[in-house]
Amino acid sequence: MTSRKAIRSQGVDGLSAYLEEKRTLVEKALARFVSAASVRPSTIHAAMRYSLLGGGKRLRPILTLAAAEVCGVKDLSNTLPAACAVELIHTYSLIHDDLPCMDDDDLRRDRPTSHKVYGEGVAVLAGDALLTRAFGLIAGIKPAKCYPLSVLVEETAAAAGSLQLIAGQVADLEAEGRKLSIADVRFIHERKTGAMIVLSLRLGAMIANATPGQLKAVTQFGQALGLAFQIIDDILDVTQSSQQLGKSAGKDLKASKATYPAVIGLEASRKEAARLTRKAHTALRVLAIKSARLAQIAEYLLGRSF
Amino acid sequence: MTSRKAIRSQGVDGLSAYLEEKRTLVEKALARFVSAASVRPSTIHAAMRYSLLGGGKRLRPILTLAAAEVCGVKDLSNTLPAACAVELIHTYSLIHDDLPCMDDDDLRRDRPTSHKVYGEGVAVLAGDALLTRAFGLIAGIKPAKCYPLSVLVEETAAAAGSLQLIAGQVADLEAEGRKLSIADVRFIHERKTGAMIVLSLRLGAMIANATPGQLKAVTQFGQALGLAFQIIDDILDVTQSSQQLGKSAGKDLKASKATYPAVIGLEASRKEAARLTRKAHTALRVLAIKSARLAQIAEYLLGRSF
Repeated sequence: MTSRKAIRSQGVDGLSAYLEEKRTLVEKALARFVSAASVRPSTIHAAMRYSLLGGGKRLRPILTLAAAEVCGVKDLSNTLPAACAVELIHTYSLIHDDLPCMDDDDLRRDRPTSHKVYGEGVAVLAGDALLTRAFGLIAGIKPAKCYPLSVLVEETAAAAGSLQLIAGQVADLEAEGRKLSIADVRFIHERKTGAMIVLSLRLGAMIANATPGQLKAVTQFGQALGLAFQIIDDILDVTQSSQQLGKSAGKDLKASKATYPAVIGLEASRKEAARLTRKAHTALRVLAIKSARLAQIAEYLLGRSF
Repeated sequence: MTSRKAIRSQGVDGLSAYLEEKRTLVEKALARFVSAASVRPSTIHAAMRYSLLGGGKRLRPILTLAAAEVCGVKDLSNTLPAACAVELIHTYSLIHDDLPCMDDDDLRRDRPTSHKVYGEGVAVLAGDALLTRAFGLIAGIKPAKCYPLSVLVEETAAAAGSLQLIAGQVADLEAEGRKLSIADVRFIHERKTGAMIVLSLRLGAMIANATPGQLKAVTQFGQALGLAFQIIDDILDVTQSSQQLGKSAGKDLKASKATYPAVIGLEASRKEAARLTRKAHTALRVLAIKSARLAQIAEYLLGRSF
């Protein structure tokens, strides 16, 4: 915990500026990489932009940019299409997850979800279009020597595909009302959350022509970060709702929800999150990536009090 | 018409064998290119295979293979991933089109649609997974000299994206209950049907390292073929249903349906289909592609009596 505190006290101001700078860069690129809402048929482009440009931390694209920088990239213009591609895929997955036939959510980030605004048909198609456009963006990357475009496209298709992102969503759908083991919940989290976080980092590293050691380091970092991030989300959902009057903590804790606290309880979840946080930092240190920046981002994401 | 008759009388037997041979090749590759239904989570892979391996003419992948052969490819093993990718995208678009929030169809090829068998959530995800896998397949192609992988991925993303395939579906959704012009219907047909037929042919030609003239020829051929094919479908829907007792021809003819007969009538639709059929054959002849085979396929597809 001492090293985390040290990073926090040294670098918070620098990190805030870094995150804001990168977020602005990503916002501008996202707005540029998707057709204007005036382009026919305007409904689909308005719907794509509504969900894509509706705010958010831009965690995944920032990880792509940070990984590229850590591995030596100075000019980020060739990394931005990859960073935006992962955000497009993340946004498509949220639109489809929110549909009535999935999680049936009416609100996301305090705004009505896509299908509430545009109807279910257009929401499905807006998700489809963002996923498709993501691959168009990947195609525009000038690949580095050791990682040809085929690798970038294959890794993206694998992370977003039926063995990773979509596997997580299907397993989550099927988990409703069932008694889950911790292995089941981990299976879901590693795929639904972890796969795209690992991809975000790997794309950045590969565009930077990372050494095998660097690529391994960001991969292990991403695996630990992604799982820890989701467990902390699970924990905060419980502790936050128990603090809010009128909402029962039991609602989130019931075994039918695929969360760590529901299966192993709050204390064990906290310990697991702390273990994975240490593992994330170790991945960076052991493999000798000179990355105060990635360590800071991990601290920022995982240092939320839980 | 004499040349079409000549092709028909000379080549029908050879064509049937050709189509059957290519269809078998495609079926085997499709079964290989998607995870087995036993792979976890099995629901998603079962759903993907249910729709993908449920029969069909395999028109689009056969066009990819034929275009590659016409442009000089002998060994089709490098063309099969592209051929299957277009079929995966076609299948994904059918699964999503059939959803209750879109066309709400319960049956396709005499079998229950995906959402009737697996539920809407899994059907949406099965479509997503097929689309994603298609790009994974494209990534595995060894590109020819003049058409790098970036071009293959970009063209695929463009044809399947918000300006082409998805634009057609959105415009079709929005057309319901509205008075359409012939330009509106053509806009829909060119995108919803035409774009993927053109892509199918272009991918095959590009993998074969086609000359600019050859690529232009298959593109013009595909544009004419795709539109003619859809207009003939429109016509057959009307004439078939008017021949069936208990079904009113007026149901298909009402102006709210985005079809040629609904907007310009049967006779003008027949003339337009005939004009486009001639145009398809001209594209092959004028640009000197030695392709009795593509001409035969066009004859097979467009020679249905209407």
